[in-house]
Amino acid sequence: MSITIVGTIGIDTIQTPFGTAENVLGGSAVYCALAAAFYQPVSMVAVKGADLPDSALASLVRRGVNLDGVTTGDGPTFRWGGRYHLDLNARDTLYTELGVLAGFEPRVPDHARAPALVFLANLTPAVQAEVIRQMPGARLRALDTMNYWIANNRDELTGVLERVDIVIMSEEEVRQYAGVASLRQGARSILALGPRVIVIKQGSYGAVLLDRSGLYFASPAFPLDEVRDPTGAGDAFAGGFLGSLAAALDGGRQPAPADWKRALLHGNLMGAFACEDFGVSRLERLTSEEIAARYQEIVSYTHVESLPPLTSPAH
Amino acid sequence: MSITIVGTIGIDTIQTPFGTAENVLGGSAVYCALAAAFYQPVSMVAVKGADLPDSALASLVRRGVNLDGVTTGDGPTFRWGGRYHLDLNARDTLYTELGVLAGFEPRVPDHARAPALVFLANLTPAVQAEVIRQMPGARLRALDTMNYWIANNRDELTGVLERVDIVIMSEEEVRQYAGVASLRQGARSILALGPRVIVIKQGSYGAVLLDRSGLYFASPAFPLDEVRDPTGAGDAFAGGFLGSLAAALDGGRQPAPADWKRALLHGNLMGAFACEDFGVSRLERLTSEEIAARYQEIVSYTHVESLPPLTSPAH
Repeated sequence: MSITIVGTIGIDTIQTPFGTAENVLGGSAVYCALAAAFYQPVSMVAVKGADLPDSALASLVRRGVNLDGVTTGDGPTFRWGGRYHLDLNARDTLYTELGVLAGFEPRVPDHARAPALVFLANLTPAVQAEVIRQMPGARLRALDTMNYWIANNRDELTGVLERVDIVIMSEEEVRQYAGVASLRQGARSILALGPRVIVIKQGSYGAVLLDRSGLYFASPAFPLDEVRDPTGAGDAFAGGFLGSLAAALDGGRQPAPADWKRALLHGNLMGAFACEDFGVSRLERLTSEEIAARYQEIVSYTHVESLPPLTSPAH
Repeated sequence: MSITIVGTIGIDTIQTPFGTAENVLGGSAVYCALAAAFYQPVSMVAVKGADLPDSALASLVRRGVNLDGVTTGDGPTFRWGGRYHLDLNARDTLYTELGVLAGFEPRVPDHARAPALVFLANLTPAVQAEVIRQMPGARLRALDTMNYWIANNRDELTGVLERVDIVIMSEEEVRQYAGVASLRQGARSILALGPRVIVIKQGSYGAVLLDRSGLYFASPAFPLDEVRDPTGAGDAFAGGFLGSLAAALDGGRQPAPADWKRALLHGNLMGAFACEDFGVSRLERLTSEEIAARYQEIVSYTHVESLPPLTSPAH
């Protein structure tokens, strides 16, 4: 089943302890699409400024991403600058210049309105709601968000949460939204709003998935020798997760537990690939063969050859 | 194979957001022994003060733990007080009164010097080295430590690390000792000292295990609805890990990858059980049946029914 991704295109400047990348291609839709396009046909809905030439999106075109939904607005492209600390789990935002993103009116092309999986990457809840309105035939709706909307647009965000099937949030966001320390309790209160599945991202620790029927699945992150730049890892994670899910459901059937589990593993793989180099460069040069090899590896990292527990002696 | 545990007996006062426990039984050897004794015969080597009556150790006796190596010193029992923050991963130490622990001279009883698995819980490296000296016939030596010894007794600690088979450390301790952010790199530099296996504890995220041959295994923590008191979770983890390992090697064979993996799962189970109530109370009322049931659960949380990756389309 094809995938429609609505998110941002950005120009990023990134500083990490390992170096700096200036004015490189970024944005949630870009990271997510580069990952998801390994699995199923992807259409991207986003806005850029005239300062970003079409040629900057060449790697998306090469991967077959349909860009009919990308418009060029009247103003500069969204720009973001960030600096990471030594432990790479913490970062400072140096600047955020919305540019054309401030007036973003998403317009989903007709072809992308067909029964598809739609991913609402981190954007204002109002824009996310508008995309849902434009895609009444969507087979599955997935959503990402961020702390800012939870704090400042909580009611609107709740309205969107009630209308999606899959919620992808960080553990901090789950705790912030649900107001509890326990992720299991937080997940339950979000699932009670309507979504059938919640995926909780835990950064360098991996991710867990819970569904309304009680399914619980955890995948530790793929262990890297060196993380060079975590920018976009969460969006690449979403791309791998949703791409794998859409591929599994391509025949039209409903998702089974094994589909969710494999999707979580693919999400973790893509998140880790994104961290191996600055910006989107690792995702741009990634191959299907590398994904398949790492999938076998990540499975081996958690699977036990012989399943029975050790019975305890009677003392 | 029997297990000899050298560590502390303490009287703890614990404050968490869920309540307070005053002057309750604690200490690394106590938590570890209560967990390990589910798997194999355990002997404990530790010191207490006369202010702690023998009856306080009744739950250890009931579980069959041999206390011949527990001496009563001339002074008060080691006392520790701690307060946990709302997120339970951070805590303040309110007081530490060493008491008889200051002059602790471990004396491993003859019966506990037989070929056994010895666990050197967190103590001064000098005491750990002395136990190694007393047990030349130990089949496997495992060690825990803490940030204080890494900072202040680094050379002595390195001397002990060179003589053990299994190192159990938190991720913060690995980074502190090895001076690198990457856990994989840190693990390699510690394994290069001599140990064949390192187990890295990640608190509420679980644990990972690496060995010198390149084995990598990760186990997410068992997800609890509510963590009431994390005190002793790391020691209970060690007890489950080493107990399961000793049970698997009872016939005298060398550990295989499956033994390490199952041991890591059992460690995570015991660490989680310890968190479910204050002090040792959950471990005291734990049953073998509960362990076996949770083992099946924790396996299901990471295992994928159908292993092949989703092949990516050729675009």
